[in-house]
Amino acid sequence: MNVRVPEGDAPAMTAYSPSTFRGLTFHDATPRFADGSDTPRAYLERCLETIAAREPTVRAWVVMNQQGAREAADASTARWKAGKPLSAIDGMPVGIKDLLETRDMPTQMGCVGYRGNFPKRDNAAVWALRQAGTVVLGKTVTTELGGAHPGPTTNPFDSGRTPGGSSSGSAAAVGACMVPAAIGSQVGGSIIRPASYCGNYALKPTQGGINRGERQATSMSTHGPHAGSIEDMWLVAIEIAKRAGGDPGRLGLFGPDAPPAARRPATVAVMEAEGWRLLDDASRAAFEAIVDALRAQGVTVLRRADHPAIERFEQAIQGVQALTNVITGWENHWNFRNLVAQDPNNISDRAKSVLAGAEKQSIEDYRAAILKREEMRRAHEAIGPVVDALIAPASPGPAPVWTGDVPGQPQIKRPTGDAVYNTPSSALGAPVVTVPLMSVGGMPMGVQVMGQSHTDAAMTAIARWMAESVPPVAA
Amino acid sequence: MNVRVPEGDAPAMTAYSPSTFRGLTFHDATPRFADGSDTPRAYLERCLETIAAREPTVRAWVVMNQQGAREAADASTARWKAGKPLSAIDGMPVGIKDLLETRDMPTQMGCVGYRGNFPKRDNAAVWALRQAGTVVLGKTVTTELGGAHPGPTTNPFDSGRTPGGSSSGSAAAVGACMVPAAIGSQVGGSIIRPASYCGNYALKPTQGGINRGERQATSMSTHGPHAGSIEDMWLVAIEIAKRAGGDPGRLGLFGPDAPPAARRPATVAVMEAEGWRLLDDASRAAFEAIVDALRAQGVTVLRRADHPAIERFEQAIQGVQALTNVITGWENHWNFRNLVAQDPNNISDRAKSVLAGAEKQSIEDYRAAILKREEMRRAHEAIGPVVDALIAPASPGPAPVWTGDVPGQPQIKRPTGDAVYNTPSSALGAPVVTVPLMSVGGMPMGVQVMGQSHTDAAMTAIARWMAESVPPVAA
Repeated sequence: MNVRVPEGDAPAMTAYSPSTFRGLTFHDATPRFADGSDTPRAYLERCLETIAAREPTVRAWVVMNQQGAREAADASTARWKAGKPLSAIDGMPVGIKDLLETRDMPTQMGCVGYRGNFPKRDNAAVWALRQAGTVVLGKTVTTELGGAHPGPTTNPFDSGRTPGGSSSGSAAAVGACMVPAAIGSQVGGSIIRPASYCGNYALKPTQGGINRGERQATSMSTHGPHAGSIEDMWLVAIEIAKRAGGDPGRLGLFGPDAPPAARRPATVAVMEAEGWRLLDDASRAAFEAIVDALRAQGVTVLRRADHPAIERFEQAIQGVQALTNVITGWENHWNFRNLVAQDPNNISDRAKSVLAGAEKQSIEDYRAAILKREEMRRAHEAIGPVVDALIAPASPGPAPVWTGDVPGQPQIKRPTGDAVYNTPSSALGAPVVTVPLMSVGGMPMGVQVMGQSHTDAAMTAIARWMAESVPPVAA
Repeated sequence: MNVRVPEGDAPAMTAYSPSTFRGLTFHDATPRFADGSDTPRAYLERCLETIAAREPTVRAWVVMNQQGAREAADASTARWKAGKPLSAIDGMPVGIKDLLETRDMPTQMGCVGYRGNFPKRDNAAVWALRQAGTVVLGKTVTTELGGAHPGPTTNPFDSGRTPGGSSSGSAAAVGACMVPAAIGSQVGGSIIRPASYCGNYALKPTQGGINRGERQATSMSTHGPHAGSIEDMWLVAIEIAKRAGGDPGRLGLFGPDAPPAARRPATVAVMEAEGWRLLDDASRAAFEAIVDALRAQGVTVLRRADHPAIERFEQAIQGVQALTNVITGWENHWNFRNLVAQDPNNISDRAKSVLAGAEKQSIEDYRAAILKREEMRRAHEAIGPVVDALIAPASPGPAPVWTGDVPGQPQIKRPTGDAVYNTPSSALGAPVVTVPLMSVGGMPMGVQVMGQSHTDAAMTAIARWMAESVPPVAA
């Protein structure tokens, strides 16, 4: 499953520049659907052409329902023609991470134990997307059960590198301009990290913001959109939330129907987190150039030494990477145990190692982790009055090289990259938007904007301002 | 599925008196396992004899794994013999409500759409019960998907009456002394109501107190034990929670390993709720006799007029019955929709009517309901400093007559009884223990003791004191 580059093949590379790269957009195509000069069906066919050209190398998709997609696109074409689209994203081709159930395609979760799993149900978010008229094109590759063990997907800008995980296929499909948007999910770094590596816009909503349907097993996972534009990113998120709401008992995602207008923040702070010491010189230089550019635009950028609440927050989130592993390992281990009880070969050695770690914990360890997480959240809330947002690199560098495990050699620990810049927002339940503002060594790297709970729309507005007003940086 | 009494058969009745009825107990049998004068295998065989005698009328079980149970009982026998039981409930035969997954038996949820469903996984609580050495004997009847549409189970004290729902089989199996304990679940009134009707002790824990495993779809459901004694009730709950913890992100059930010692409360208040006006004269007289008995034992019993916080709480929870229907209807409707999309015959007309109601709601209606629920919780918290517990009838009367829908006639709305005295604790996320202290017209009826979040052990201590010190009442 994870050996991808046939021997002798050279990695396929595509030059990436944040100044010139244009992701695939949908929001600006709909006026032509209305006047008849374009149609959702024609839009879909263009997507399928891109997929035909790039999928042999990128390998973003597990399965597609092309016939169903064409039928849905035709129905959308008729609705636009009649002046009665179901939503602003009626006709949008979307990919669905293969952790979410879809009634017309299997849900195999990148896991041997789920091979052929076909429950014929739609996840609440998938149902909402269909109600909004979107074209659910296919299932995108996930790492095994959303964990560390990679699937076959390659980075769309360098097939010798990882697309990131766990939303590997969704990020790569969007980065390769195969679709304008795709659904990912994050419990550690699984939306924002691959989006950073693949040059996507992406939203990891406030915890509970988008109904996870049957996927409620973990206390800090969210569903969220990857997109080629911030407009489509927002539209997908809000059109789901309007219909499916948030997780049970939660108020769900708040915000306007239209993409929030750009808004310059008055004050932001840099979040160093545990990743700061891991940044290579070029990545750090790129990020500092973004900080300089923000200041040049009149934004006050605080560093940890500038305010005691920020320093206290930085101290509070030390250890968050390990904490998220403890919490998620425990929460997932009932499912892992059942899979192993059915057949020890159902999960990878990487997953077995996660299970073994969880089995060593007690309920008291888990409780202590939950209480520690609460402290982190309080420290984060305390900086709410101080800054409009926190900014940080969306990953501790560009996508690392990865061409598969080598038989006989020890498996490397993080083949899809390091989630060190993503576990803070996951643990805090905080909304984050990543903006593809940087390139390092010719590969994309995002800047993330993180806020307090339920400021998803405000973070999108700041991210949009940055995308429109801060010059991209190539390092 | 719901026509139960063959024509011509007279209902089978068993006299019930709260003074003389003795539920099946396990906690007092284990000393004999240790000294060899009894064994878990022999205990199981006695349970199977009772089941053989009573199941043809009571119909509490969907499926049993008798061979697996005998093997588990033999293994337990060996552990007790070796002086190495896994827990205080090692060897206890238990029933599992057929909403929870079990790896050795199908999970059919009383629903046509789940006929033959056999995922071969253990719910987290079931796994914990096996780790504690219990004998998982079989799956007990649930109403369809835990809703209003009844299964075939009859009340163990009068086969012409409902056992209550949705944990019909668990309550009836315990009431019929088939097993010392069984697992139920409550989202509206599904643990405490059938326990009241069947003469059980039962705990509806603090919301999130016991890990629901795969069953996380609703924001106010809990798993909890029905038992023939308060000691076994507590032991089952705590032995699960020690191993499986609470729901994801929750701290889980707190309390001692041993059943909490009886504790007389200083002050309790009567919760009238929306059910007060529905009580028939005999039920009200029985409950008032309990109030008088509490006062005779030196307990201060407040009524709503006695303290403004209690009056405010009563006003705050007006409408809670309808509110829980709105919230749960919305939260369940993704699953209902999928079932109907697969096959319209997958769910009953009763369930379709619930789905139709949910489809009429918007996400804004749901949000309003969640916010209203928060207000109720604040009003409940405000009486925390005023009283040690709230007490109330556990149901608005004894089990109603129910002998099945009559073809061609309108279906009655609540064939398993009225949850009006249970929706407050469900909506509040509050722990409740019911004590079988009353009989009305020869049928059991419980008194419930409700507390603030995480006072499960304290409520059990008060309930135990009531069971030991308050004379039962027959009306």
